[in-house]
Amino acid sequence: MRSDNSKIKEIFKDLVFTAEEIKLIESVFHKINVKKGAILLTAGESVNEQYYILEGCLRSFHIDSDGKEYTVQFGIKDWWISDYTAFFTSSKAIMNIEVIQDAIIYKITEQDKELLYEKIPKIEHFFRVKLEKAFAAFQKRILSNLSKTAKERYLDFIKTYPNIEKSVKNYHIASYLGITTESLSRIRKAL
Amino acid sequence: MRSDNSKIKEIFKDLVFTAEEIKLIESVFHKINVKKGAILLTAGESVNEQYYILEGCLRSFHIDSDGKEYTVQFGIKDWWISDYTAFFTSSKAIMNIEVIQDAIIYKITEQDKELLYEKIPKIEHFFRVKLEKAFAAFQKRILSNLSKTAKERYLDFIKTYPNIEKSVKNYHIASYLGITTESLSRIRKAL
Repeated sequence: MRSDNSKIKEIFKDLVFTAEEIKLIESVFHKINVKKGAILLTAGESVNEQYYILEGCLRSFHIDSDGKEYTVQFGIKDWWISDYTAFFTSSKAIMNIEVIQDAIIYKITEQDKELLYEKIPKIEHFFRVKLEKAFAAFQKRILSNLSKTAKERYLDFIKTYPNIEKSVKNYHIASYLGITTESLSRIRKAL
Repeated sequence: MRSDNSKIKEIFKDLVFTAEEIKLIESVFHKINVKKGAILLTAGESVNEQYYILEGCLRSFHIDSDGKEYTVQFGIKDWWISDYTAFFTSSKAIMNIEVIQDAIIYKITEQDKELLYEKIPKIEHFFRVKLEKAFAAFQKRILSNLSKTAKERYLDFIKTYPNIEKSVKNYHIASYLGITTESLSRIRKAL
């Protein structure tokens, strides 16, 4: 089996590992191609995987009892996506994860992630720092949802996801902003 | 200097440390009493500290250009509070932190926290797990803000902060829910 460390470099960039560590990392990350429209997670399921996006775009969304969709996160290049509430607290998924642009992703199970943390402390460090940034971004989003107008939230969205607009549907964006597609059109026209 | 490990137990519960580790931990966490009304952080300042709440209650809130307040988080017993966006990304605070009930807290600087992570990997593990739970809670809150009615958000609030209602002002709760105090009164009456 050839091992050119490409997984390692793609995910962990400049981190340096021993040969044994590389072997372990290669064995727990699984690279897969997923097609637009594929559903990687359905609400109600157990969540045992987290996805790293190498290329393409995914989104996580919730569907309420009236069938209305709410997009919580878009996952683009070099982002991680999961139903974190379910993944981190071992409860059933409340979110769905959908591929909205053909993607190449790495998946890893919760058990394998814990194994990595245990065997390779620098990976726990790597993810702790990632998690802090993601946590900060979530705090910003909570504040933004509470305090900003739909127009301001749209401008934040463009800033956060600079190249995403062409590849996602209007209702994806509207359901991320918590507005209707009609309101989104009005905001775009006004800008 | 007497060292009865009380700090360690209060913060890290059952984690076991060596004598040397205990000495380091004791030296970086500072226990302070803070009075109701005290402001621990003001927007625009640099954020270099994070607070662990042993007793009492704090809140983090943002004030917009019209002077309107938005409560992002209440900090109660065994919770951590900071302006995480600023703390984790080394930018200026956009939040204020206020003591809303006399409190006993531990404070730690960012540098000291990094030092602890470096010297004591099990502390990095401890905080990574804490952070995952907090991140999951934030994801839930984002979804709740997008998809739930004010009444449902109020019920979530009571569940998240079961004993807090008597000690906080109505406008604290309203500004956490993103509603007016009048709407909050209506919801309470209806329940």
